[in-house]
Amino acid sequence: MSLFPIEPRLLLGPGPSPVSARILEALSRPTVGHLDSQFLAIMDDVNARLRRMYGTNNALTFPVSGTGSAAQEAAMANMLEPGDTVIVGVNGAFGSRLAEMGRRIGATVVPVEAEWGRIVEPERVIAAHKTNPGARVVALVHAETSTGVSQPLTEVGAHLAGTETLFLVDAVTSLGGMPVDVDANHIDVCYSGTQKCLGVPPGLAPLTFSPRAVERIRTRTQPCQSWYLDAALLADYVGEGATRKYHHTAPINMMYALHEGLVIAEEEGLAARFARHKSVGDSLQTGLVERGWTLFAQEGHRLSQLTSAALPGGQPEAPVRAALLRDYAIEVGGGLGPAAGKVWRVGLMGAGATQDSVDQLLSAVDVLLA
Amino acid sequence: MSLFPIEPRLLLGPGPSPVSARILEALSRPTVGHLDSQFLAIMDDVNARLRRMYGTNNALTFPVSGTGSAAQEAAMANMLEPGDTVIVGVNGAFGSRLAEMGRRIGATVVPVEAEWGRIVEPERVIAAHKTNPGARVVALVHAETSTGVSQPLTEVGAHLAGTETLFLVDAVTSLGGMPVDVDANHIDVCYSGTQKCLGVPPGLAPLTFSPRAVERIRTRTQPCQSWYLDAALLADYVGEGATRKYHHTAPINMMYALHEGLVIAEEEGLAARFARHKSVGDSLQTGLVERGWTLFAQEGHRLSQLTSAALPGGQPEAPVRAALLRDYAIEVGGGLGPAAGKVWRVGLMGAGATQDSVDQLLSAVDVLLA
Repeated sequence: MSLFPIEPRLLLGPGPSPVSARILEALSRPTVGHLDSQFLAIMDDVNARLRRMYGTNNALTFPVSGTGSAAQEAAMANMLEPGDTVIVGVNGAFGSRLAEMGRRIGATVVPVEAEWGRIVEPERVIAAHKTNPGARVVALVHAETSTGVSQPLTEVGAHLAGTETLFLVDAVTSLGGMPVDVDANHIDVCYSGTQKCLGVPPGLAPLTFSPRAVERIRTRTQPCQSWYLDAALLADYVGEGATRKYHHTAPINMMYALHEGLVIAEEEGLAARFARHKSVGDSLQTGLVERGWTLFAQEGHRLSQLTSAALPGGQPEAPVRAALLRDYAIEVGGGLGPAAGKVWRVGLMGAGATQDSVDQLLSAVDVLLA
Repeated sequence: MSLFPIEPRLLLGPGPSPVSARILEALSRPTVGHLDSQFLAIMDDVNARLRRMYGTNNALTFPVSGTGSAAQEAAMANMLEPGDTVIVGVNGAFGSRLAEMGRRIGATVVPVEAEWGRIVEPERVIAAHKTNPGARVVALVHAETSTGVSQPLTEVGAHLAGTETLFLVDAVTSLGGMPVDVDANHIDVCYSGTQKCLGVPPGLAPLTFSPRAVERIRTRTQPCQSWYLDAALLADYVGEGATRKYHHTAPINMMYALHEGLVIAEEEGLAARFARHKSVGDSLQTGLVERGWTLFAQEGHRLSQLTSAALPGGQPEAPVRAALLRDYAIEVGGGLGPAAGKVWRVGLMGAGATQDSVDQLLSAVDVLLA
């Protein structure tokens, strides 16, 4: 082995999350061809399991061959054409990125802004839609990784269901850690990444399109600006019973890993998995508050799998975070945007969402901040 | 292990190529964070090794977080803006795809076409450039995976070097199996994939930009249509001494595998590696001709690592290929476009480029066609 030595870390940052031995073993199984019936069967089973994880019957559900940001771009680029209007909830880094992607596509972006750390109030989103009823898409971030905010989806989804406007949701940090309920929430396009609550290395990005999103793809006046991410082309390869037409070479070994991650999740049971994420997140947040930390996200709308919190007394976070990595081999993330410099972002995701992770982190913090 | 059983195959198709045990082991090393100094050191070393493999001093050399097609799109999307002119050599599937990507970007595409299986004559490319001296880019496919043609690059590169036009080259099936000589050939943008002659699973795609390509990125009037593939943003993360600004989560474990693949290549020696690909490719082509097969690519311009050949007597290829997979667990590819139905595409790439591969394949063919 000629790689540099790699010292393992306990990954409690905003991602990647810890990858279990079972998933690493799956990753290293023999590579076969992307048109091999063995591989296609695994991909079909991945897609079926993703549907259950997403809570959807959408036929067009598959992993994009890139990271979560690639699926984010695929979602936007397949729905929007130049000149379309897109309403975007912007209350953190990933909402800002949705807006930026919309602008690059040549769409008119109507931002509905809220302070970082607060939700975008559903009634404000609905009001923006009433002002712009011809908007092609309303886009919201379910779990804002930059702030730890859990965005309500139900009211906006119910409102849009009776209109011509499509509902697009970023579930990068929610899928696998909490219900996304794509169908129940009337979501038309939803994307995620493998390296958060699914506990799989980064490199694939689950994406799902509702029948009306598929209809939108079919009735575009111009092709998707991205050939690589064009769902109309991808559907001929990824769909069960499709022609399996060659488009690009799928990341074979990453698909093995994602398959194993989804099997592990169903072995645990999805409800139990979501409850575990909730329980350990609550435990961490209680422990931090007891120690004088200030939770950054709005009360009542805090994610369990991603906690952002400011250190006691407003002290600078970076030196403590560096010591945590150096002395305890625990990785957490720093704040972004207005939370930079003072806030940690702690992920308890996938295999990392355990009481032991919480205990290790709080014990280390007790020493480092003593 | 809950994966479906995976029966190993001898991968002698157009990719993926066989992945060695060392690389699979590297792939399964512990996942760390994408901003971890351990990971950044591995990425820096990958980039240094890619420069040597490409034959370039280009500072901006890194793997795109997707497959070869993602890097193809990154190359085109970063160089071109709507209204630009791009001259594209089209003599197979991958040249056609370059043209399609150019059109989607809104560029004016000037195709220089040649029959599938023949090179695009350099003088015709140079003539097209003289007719369109304001063209932003000339794009050629070095190793046309759909036909097995090896495209000459030197004359076109030398011609363009004295002009304002950038030279863009697809090296998906050449990098790691034959010299690409980016700097000597005056190539400005060059991309590849991991799953061909580098012998690494699919999922990353090496890309390099010359200083004048970087200047082009800096002086664009509009940002790259793709946020995910925007080299101006990526440079802040991937570059040695860069700010390491978060852009997306790099595919950590795939980077370990690519690193190991590049180490293995340098252990063998690049010249020895290229000679090995040439030697076994010659051996296969000789063996096929002796058996009455007809080589599809133009004489004098045949790739060694990818051979396309029609079966004796013009018989249909698909049943024999299916039997080869079923009875011998050997995968080869079928022809594309005008070569569909009659031609096999045989890859002898990376760890698959051995005399033993040739012997196994020819022995099987002797039985199947007896």
